Amino acid sequence: MNVDGKHYRTIWLDSPGCVRIIDQARLPHEFALLDLRTPDEMAAAIRNMNLRGAGLIGCAAAWGMYLAAVEDTDLPAAAARIQATRPTAKNLEWALERMQKALATCTPANRVETARREAQAITDEDADFSRRMGQHGLELIREIAVRKSGQPVNVLTHCNAGWLAFVDYGTALAPVYAAFDAGIPVHVWVDETRPRNQGAALTAWELGHHRVPHTLIPDNAGGHLMQHGLVDIVFVGCDRCTAAGDVANKIGTYLKALAARDNGVPFYAVLPSSTIDWSIEDGVREIVIEERGAEEVRTVTGWNDAAGKVATVRICPEGTPAANYGFDVTPARLVTGILTERGLAPATPEGLRALYADLHP
Amino acid sequence: MNVDGKHYRTIWLDSPGCVRIIDQARLPHEFALLDLRTPDEMAAAIRNMNLRGAGLIGCAAAWGMYLAAVEDTDLPAAAARIQATRPTAKNLEWALERMQKALATCTPANRVETARREAQAITDEDADFSRRMGQHGLELIREIAVRKSGQPVNVLTHCNAGWLAFVDYGTALAPVYAAFDAGIPVHVWVDETRPRNQGAALTAWELGHHRVPHTLIPDNAGGHLMQHGLVDIVFVGCDRCTAAGDVANKIGTYLKALAARDNGVPFYAVLPSSTIDWSIEDGVREIVIEERGAEEVRTVTGWNDAAGKVATVRICPEGTPAANYGFDVTPARLVTGILTERGLAPATPEGLRALYADLHP
Repeated sequence: MNVDGKHYRTIWLDSPGCVRIIDQARLPHEFALLDLRTPDEMAAAIRNMNLRGAGLIGCAAAWGMYLAAVEDTDLPAAAARIQATRPTAKNLEWALERMQKALATCTPANRVETARREAQAITDEDADFSRRMGQHGLELIREIAVRKSGQPVNVLTHCNAGWLAFVDYGTALAPVYAAFDAGIPVHVWVDETRPRNQGAALTAWELGHHRVPHTLIPDNAGGHLMQHGLVDIVFVGCDRCTAAGDVANKIGTYLKALAARDNGVPFYAVLPSSTIDWSIEDGVREIVIEERGAEEVRTVTGWNDAAGKVATVRICPEGTPAANYGFDVTPARLVTGILTERGLAPATPEGLRALYADLHP
Repeated sequence: MNVDGKHYRTIWLDSPGCVRIIDQARLPHEFALLDLRTPDEMAAAIRNMNLRGAGLIGCAAAWGMYLAAVEDTDLPAAAARIQATRPTAKNLEWALERMQKALATCTPANRVETARREAQAITDEDADFSRRMGQHGLELIREIAVRKSGQPVNVLTHCNAGWLAFVDYGTALAPVYAAFDAGIPVHVWVDETRPRNQGAALTAWELGHHRVPHTLIPDNAGGHLMQHGLVDIVFVGCDRCTAAGDVANKIGTYLKALAARDNGVPFYAVLPSSTIDWSIEDGVREIVIEERGAEEVRTVTGWNDAAGKVATVRICPEGTPAANYGFDVTPARLVTGILTERGLAPATPEGLRALYADLHP
């Protein structure tokens, strides 16, 4: 997508042995790039969320394995260190497995080139899949636009599952960009997404740079908006989807799904098939939920106008105990449909399996 | 309740013509008192949330009318200015009506003393009602404690409906304080409560000063906790309750009620009868929801360690549009019960009316 008129992806090989990313930890206050030259630098970037987002983490893991090949280090050990950074994300595991499979069969002389080619393929496929999800989701928005006879379609989204969370286009926001580019009037309610504020910092930044109308709201507001008919459709991303359609996504997603169900608002999870964990069904019981540091809950970081720089403020008494669960699981019964690169599936074991019958017979 | 060993109420008449309050806008980083000497200073304090909370706003309005009597200004005009500050709060309207009724029948020479006496009566009654709600709610906590054979009872609360929101004890937290003081092990999950963070700033501060175990969580986390059996009971306050038991409370309350229902967790609204609006039934359609400034959503204020002072940071790109609805309405069907100074009522027109049959036959 474009940043000030220039097309960017979120990650690319800049020169041999140097992977360049957009440093998302500095957005929205500063647009900066970050170079990563070792698998451990990549692991640190994933852990510290210099890059984040379901798809992008997978691509980053793949490029981390490329850097491991360049460094000529122990590949399974490097994969384990990268895997340990974010336990909930399915794409991380998926990309590491795919890289190790590709590297298992190549000669030592071909390792670096094989790793480069496979990481590039994963990256290009991510962008292509996002573009397709956008086209499928566009049809859902178009139907609502027709019904509303030209009134803007109000989309609600949680966290950031836009192009910054993938390589390009995104998942939850891909249909929004596709609709906007097709001239359909859309407006996005952007959940702030505490504690790390990815909605306020990243989704608002993305939409603003693409000139898509949007309004920032506290995470608390979505239910009220739905009660009053102000949300037509919910699109969220996903970090791990079970074979039964249970959806692990940023903490708070489940609350929005409950409100959508209570008010008859359609609720879609948008995800590439690489996010589906075919080995599990019951997401609430089986998906490991990452717990992050309490300091993220006690503090908020943002731009301090008075000081002219980024600052961190504590919002509670010193030493207040805090808990920080990164994700929650929305049971399939609350999900209207799962939108993938192949189109729409009901959030059921049969529905998902039918869409991928060739891969999972 | 106690602050560093000294008993405080949130509001009191300090000397003739001078009402003193705890300045809640400066908590939790600084404990300071604020003197108010005119009805317009009181209206500004309510609007700017130097004091806030369902019950306290009512008492503040009453003391505002006392200051209007002292100033010998036009009383209905003063009442209208105070009423305009926070449209959703029932207690504001209730207290202003009660004050005007008392003042309507007194002689001009008796105005100030009548106003003082009525405001003091409203204030003392608020504290007494809170104490009673605590005793009624204690029984609900005790039942769970018995069932859990001594394991701590996990309470979830949203916003601040503790003693800072009333004169003393509070509503949602009154049962917690009563249980804690009775030696029942309790632990409170404290919702941060964006955008103004009353949970992080006030509830955590209150509970910490009373040494009640608690954990701060983002507003997004409650659903996940309930899915995993980590919440035994939800207590929330209320700003306006309809005759049918629909509950207007801080934005985001409805989302927690949905999660409680989905996970079989009992959900109680705790409120004095002065919060009940007997004139309406359908809260979603009939309660006016206050909209506040967008800047509260775009920014967060807290303690900046580096600068050694309170600072405000912007969490989104400059100029991001934002919406700020102050409250939402939880339909009665999601409310397990309404706990008032008289005890527990089902959240139904019949249930509430039966508890107040003498007042509303």
